[in-house]
Amino acid sequence: MADYVYGPGRNHLFVPGPVNIPDPVIRAMNRQNEDYRSPAIPALTKILLEDVKKIFKTTTGTPFLIPTTGTGAWESALTNTLSPGDRIVSFLIGQFSLLWIDQQQRLGFDVDVVESDWGHGADLTALERKLRNDTLHTIKAVAIVHNETATGVTNDLAAVRRLLDAYAHPALLLVDGVSSICALDFHMDEWGVDVALTGSQKALSMPTGMGIVCASPKALEASKTAKSVRVFFDWKDYLRFYEMGTYWPYTPSIQLLYGLRTALDLIFEEGLDNVIKRHNRLGTATRFAVEAWGLKNCCQKEECFSNTVTAVVVPPYIDSAEIVKHAWKRYNLSLGLGLNKVAGKVFRIGHLGNLNELQLLGCLSGVEMVLKDVGYPVKLGSGVAAAAAYLSNSTPLIPSRI
Amino acid sequence: MADYVYGPGRNHLFVPGPVNIPDPVIRAMNRQNEDYRSPAIPALTKILLEDVKKIFKTTTGTPFLIPTTGTGAWESALTNTLSPGDRIVSFLIGQFSLLWIDQQQRLGFDVDVVESDWGHGADLTALERKLRNDTLHTIKAVAIVHNETATGVTNDLAAVRRLLDAYAHPALLLVDGVSSICALDFHMDEWGVDVALTGSQKALSMPTGMGIVCASPKALEASKTAKSVRVFFDWKDYLRFYEMGTYWPYTPSIQLLYGLRTALDLIFEEGLDNVIKRHNRLGTATRFAVEAWGLKNCCQKEECFSNTVTAVVVPPYIDSAEIVKHAWKRYNLSLGLGLNKVAGKVFRIGHLGNLNELQLLGCLSGVEMVLKDVGYPVKLGSGVAAAAAYLSNSTPLIPSRI
Amino acid sequence: MADYVYGPGRNHLFVPGPVNIPDPVIRAMNRQNEDYRSPAIPALTKILLEDVKKIFKTTTGTPFLIPTTGTGAWESALTNTLSPGDRIVSFLIGQFSLLWIDQQQRLGFDVDVVESDWGHGADLTALERKLRNDTLHTIKAVAIVHNETATGVTNDLAAVRRLLDAYAHPALLLVDGVSSICALDFHMDEWGVDVALTGSQKALSMPTGMGIVCASPKALEASKTAKSVRVFFDWKDYLRFYEMGTYWPYTPSIQLLYGLRTALDLIFEEGLDNVIKRHNRLGTATRFAVEAWGLKNCCQKEECFSNTVTAVVVPPYIDSAEIVKHAWKRYNLSLGLGLNKVAGKVFRIGHLGNLNELQLLGCLSGVEMVLKDVGYPVKLGSGVAAAAAYLSNSTPLIPSRI
Amino acid sequence: MADYVYGPGRNHLFVPGPVNIPDPVIRAMNRQNEDYRSPAIPALTKILLEDVKKIFKTTTGTPFLIPTTGTGAWESALTNTLSPGDRIVSFLIGQFSLLWIDQQQRLGFDVDVVESDWGHGADLTALERKLRNDTLHTIKAVAIVHNETATGVTNDLAAVRRLLDAYAHPALLLVDGVSSICALDFHMDEWGVDVALTGSQKALSMPTGMGIVCASPKALEASKTAKSVRVFFDWKDYLRFYEMGTYWPYTPSIQLLYGLRTALDLIFEEGLDNVIKRHNRLGTATRFAVEAWGLKNCCQKEECFSNTVTAVVVPPYIDSAEIVKHAWKRYNLSLGLGLNKVAGKVFRIGHLGNLNELQLLGCLSGVEMVLKDVGYPVKLGSGVAAAAAYLSNSTPLIPSRI
Repeated sequence: MADYVYGPGRNHLFVPGPVNIPDPVIRAMNRQNEDYRSPAIPALTKILLEDVKKIFKTTTGTPFLIPTTGTGAWESALTNTLSPGDRIVSFLIGQFSLLWIDQQQRLGFDVDVVESDWGHGADLTALERKLRNDTLHTIKAVAIVHNETATGVTNDLAAVRRLLDAYAHPALLLVDGVSSICALDFHMDEWGVDVALTGSQKALSMPTGMGIVCASPKALEASKTAKSVRVFFDWKDYLRFYEMGTYWPYTPSIQLLYGLRTALDLIFEEGLDNVIKRHNRLGTATRFAVEAWGLKNCCQKEECFSNTVTAVVVPPYIDSAEIVKHAWKRYNLSLGLGLNKVAGKVFRIGHLGNLNELQLLGCLSGVEMVLKDVGYPVKLGSGVAAAAAYLSNSTPLIPSRI
Repeated sequence: MADYVYGPGRNHLFVPGPVNIPDPVIRAMNRQNEDYRSPAIPALTKILLEDVKKIFKTTTGTPFLIPTTGTGAWESALTNTLSPGDRIVSFLIGQFSLLWIDQQQRLGFDVDVVESDWGHGADLTALERKLRNDTLHTIKAVAIVHNETATGVTNDLAAVRRLLDAYAHPALLLVDGVSSICALDFHMDEWGVDVALTGSQKALSMPTGMGIVCASPKALEASKTAKSVRVFFDWKDYLRFYEMGTYWPYTPSIQLLYGLRTALDLIFEEGLDNVIKRHNRLGTATRFAVEAWGLKNCCQKEECFSNTVTAVVVPPYIDSAEIVKHAWKRYNLSLGLGLNKVAGKVFRIGHLGNLNELQLLGCLSGVEMVLKDVGYPVKLGSGVAAAAAYLSNSTPLIPSRI
Repeated sequence: MADYVYGPGRNHLFVPGPVNIPDPVIRAMNRQNEDYRSPAIPALTKILLEDVKKIFKTTTGTPFLIPTTGTGAWESALTNTLSPGDRIVSFLIGQFSLLWIDQQQRLGFDVDVVESDWGHGADLTALERKLRNDTLHTIKAVAIVHNETATGVTNDLAAVRRLLDAYAHPALLLVDGVSSICALDFHMDEWGVDVALTGSQKALSMPTGMGIVCASPKALEASKTAKSVRVFFDWKDYLRFYEMGTYWPYTPSIQLLYGLRTALDLIFEEGLDNVIKRHNRLGTATRFAVEAWGLKNCCQKEECFSNTVTAVVVPPYIDSAEIVKHAWKRYNLSLGLGLNKVAGKVFRIGHLGNLNELQLLGCLSGVEMVLKDVGYPVKLGSGVAAAAAYLSNSTPLIPSRI
Repeated sequence: MADYVYGPGRNHLFVPGPVNIPDPVIRAMNRQNEDYRSPAIPALTKILLEDVKKIFKTTTGTPFLIPTTGTGAWESALTNTLSPGDRIVSFLIGQFSLLWIDQQQRLGFDVDVVESDWGHGADLTALERKLRNDTLHTIKAVAIVHNETATGVTNDLAAVRRLLDAYAHPALLLVDGVSSICALDFHMDEWGVDVALTGSQKALSMPTGMGIVCASPKALEASKTAKSVRVFFDWKDYLRFYEMGTYWPYTPSIQLLYGLRTALDLIFEEGLDNVIKRHNRLGTATRFAVEAWGLKNCCQKEECFSNTVTAVVVPPYIDSAEIVKHAWKRYNLSLGLGLNKVAGKVFRIGHLGNLNELQLLGCLSGVEMVLKDVGYPVKLGSGVAAAAAYLSNSTPLIPSRI
């Protein structure tokens, strides 16, 4: 058997990506290859490109479905809009913003890093100061993660836009929406986001392999003069094939295209706003459990609490990596590790994507048992009780089954 | 989409069959048809017939893999071993023993029904009396369900065998193992069971469609003279094809054969005795939860508690059917209804087949919320806490992952 | 790996059942179990029962979806409508009619066998004689296979109906449509068929496991007084659950229900009459190939040629079993064996179910190579050329792709 | 249904990629996401990285499994080993070598293009001249496609290595093995290839999405000083994670990893050299058919004939695009278009990946009918006859089925 570990029952997947795939998506992807140059695949692609704009809440953006991961999507956003040496204001608030900044530096940009303590959101006061001083518009882009997956902190993008507008600053707004889009409220057009991006294995609840990037008209315009070297990630090739109606400069994954079709169908059937509300409910329930256990959220401010991932701070006498390891070995429960600065200090519960209440409560019951097993004095059932109390008093997820 | 209801996340399947299928079994069945007369299928079948004997703990039995359900397996057991008018002592302890008795009567046997109150096990005192009096051996068979799925009561088969032996009674012992085999301790040879049977969708954790019947040498001998009319269910046709090495008197489901191969592989990998222990742990945990909720088990005696299904008695002011309906609509949780005499009075939690701790705890958390929603004064988290306390203190399920 | 033989590329499945499953049906069946007592499954079943009537071309019939094979469907047809000792006129024209007759005899009916040489159709002259003489209406049923799968002979059911009408004979007309329904022209209502039946693994192109039986009002009426012993196959139980709206007296295969939904969708999308025309085209093409090879059709009369299976007679110096064995071992091509009287003398090409031209031509090219390999002086390419000439001059299968 | 076109039966996929996926690979990929940071995925990856080297026939190479396509794999090969301005000798012999050259130019290299007429192989005389003159070793790399997919021409890599050795030239040898590796004879170590690459959807017979790149020790050394800007494609990140034993700098596709495991298992089971022989047989058979039709191979020299794709030249009065379009619409047969210079002039038959004889013959019978339909005076059956004659006289593909 090609499974390297097997235990009875299901794996409980609560890392903040890759996430649980809905069965209809798995079914849709259970298929042979096809010729991507036949009339069928362009017909499918055309509709997908229209529909995928809805998850960004944009009507003016141009989407690109790139056979890559989030890291590649980052590179696509940067190299198509900027030239080497361009100044980017970039916020460092956790491991994923750090990795993006590392990429920005290695790609040759002049990165103006605004650092916050991990657990805090982007320092918008610093941004304001920089914008105020930048009368010559040397800042070419502001790069920000909407949701920092390492610490469970959600940034306030509307506020960023307000600042840019207040100073009438022309900098591009580049947003990593990897752990937000399809799960958190996101308004590309309203917030004037110039490039937004996500990966298929996050809230879209598909396998890894598709980087989804959306460019505003202003970003597309910038791509005409951006001098960063790029070929695989060059939007120009896509745009040329869009024009021709064949859509694909190189071979797409047929399976992921059909998977995306079904993933979008499910999201639209539930309603994107209902999906977002569901993430709010499950995120809130998780936070009630954490509180009941007497543990702290790594995220320091309530208004930044992430509805897709909660980083839980463990007491100093416990190594959070032990929690993650034990959960997997003993209960077939996959939790997220603490990364870099918070390694050993936090573990993460991913509550994004295709999930419902009882799955989450099963996970929370597992976390409780793990906490007990590693020596934390938790009262079994306490977190589940707190989460269930909240869930059972709030609006149901599935309003209209037969 | 061919799904009639869809909600986010997974369905939580806790009816006592059909049960949760392991992903490797689903994968194995994800395949085209094949010619069942090619050399491959007989080669596969030959090994399956050897291996399937292990789940009955028999070395002398002859198994039949019949394209039917449990009801058909019952009919196979009866018509191959008995003649119309034959006297059968049959125990009525719940809906499934009732249905089997109904079948026995409609097939023309003389059914000597030994009834117990629902929630009690088979009345072996009555059996002893009948055996004692039956010096002429008019009783041709004793028919008994090992586990009554409607009430969550497990009968003591070893005791039945002891009685038959005590009176040196030659009656055949016919056992419905539908909700027991592969989940509860079962010893066909040791207990002198003459026909044992189960269905693929129960503890084997496959789709419905394969009735698995195993006949002792004595049962095979009886089949040579049994006069019940039968064709589709006739063992003779199978035996003829076994002899020829082609195995199949009519077309088998190719998918179920490969599914059975993988289902058995998984059971043997975990170890059949470990599988049985796992059912004991999950059953015990469930009973702790029921106790914590202040509710009663429909099963009246501890020694009869079923490790595959728990029927929970609700207070008179609650209709248990409402619980089942609400669980499904609101939480995507499938529970078992109360049937016939206990309709409205019990709901059932099936905890058999391919399940692990966190799945069960997710289910229990759902039951708690449902109980609260229908007006029962449950303390949220109490059942989960009780079950988790037991589980976290007992031996783990998955001893040796990487 | 659970595959007992593997070779590069696909298996070429040309036995007359089980047949090639369309990928969308495989996808639809790639799923978990569900509670069949939830609201969803009855809702699905209700629509299926309506839609499945269309493949029988009946509006007045009552369908039963039975977890069994064709053999079980036979038993269902007989035991629900007849009483032991009832006289059945039954036509023996090949192995499958023989097996049905064997079942009829073992079930205790008085079978009046009308035998034809294998390769010929049902002897309707004999039927006429019997009807003429049967002024007392001792004949309770006429049982006939629509298409004899062993010899590739299609019987003329309309003619049977005309004879019954001519003599105003009330006998029930019981039809085995196993290798005809969904592939050959079939008119249950128009032809006054009382029970028609098929199996899921035949022209419906699904896995084995569902016997589909349809009863006329007259057959339903007969079932009220029929005295044959039956439980598993008893329509009464189904009708009771139909009445209740829960539909299932015992557990159905969830996977087959969703598979049937998709199989019907595909047939209706292509159009049932187009499906039948496609079988005519592929059957005709096959016969052109056989003729080009200089071989004979086992079916002796052109008007009886089957469009679902062609039994090809080999010269006396060749053992047809060698052809089948060699085809499988050397070319991964599955052909049908000659059975019983024609064992060693014919091999069979099944051309029913989900197939298109190039699949058939691939098969025919394989048969040519096999014939050459076993020493028959075939001109390679000759059969393919003849079949292709016909196909390329007749109306296309797929009129409206993008 | 998420299928944009559906016709009865299977699609016949004969484009030179993406190719037919074996059913066991589809089954292996039919699965949920998993945490790629659990112990299981690194354990799987470690073995995959060892095993994948075998398809390159290298023991000293270092493989990278990159979530990208062939185009990305090209970029990985170039940017990790070269610096902007570096001189590359690159052979232009068809559309795919052209696209690679375009990429090389856009990435800022000094590309010394050696052009051949389309249909011819790489001009090695020109290479020799350049090497002879390059005493200062300004040539940093020789870039060559092993098999030009647009024209069906296979280059002689051993000869390239002999030339480099003859002049003791240190240039890196970069090879696009996209339509060769796992199908054509390829010897990374023996031929001194420095970077070789392929894509999962080609002869590995998987879905698109994994670029597989293998670097020699010399290439790895070069990567330490190469100044091309790169992040997503940077080998350094992989090497760091290899060191740590976690293997993945960013999220891999769980499904493709299990798919690769099974794809390799199947190749090793058949034997890589047998797989290569099979491609030789199917390629040869195809060429016999083309000859029988009276058409020309786009490839001008027999020693360059490709065993993975045959580009067939059509007469001037026929538009080859019509052939491809008609084949798809009328026969559900997917053929390859002529690209760029040979657009309208050739169509392509891809015969790589998971294929067997009867599939190919079915395809050839379809091509014949299409040729007839578009007005080419082909004798139906002629190509099939020629191909079958060859196949039936050569060694079988499947030597040891049960």
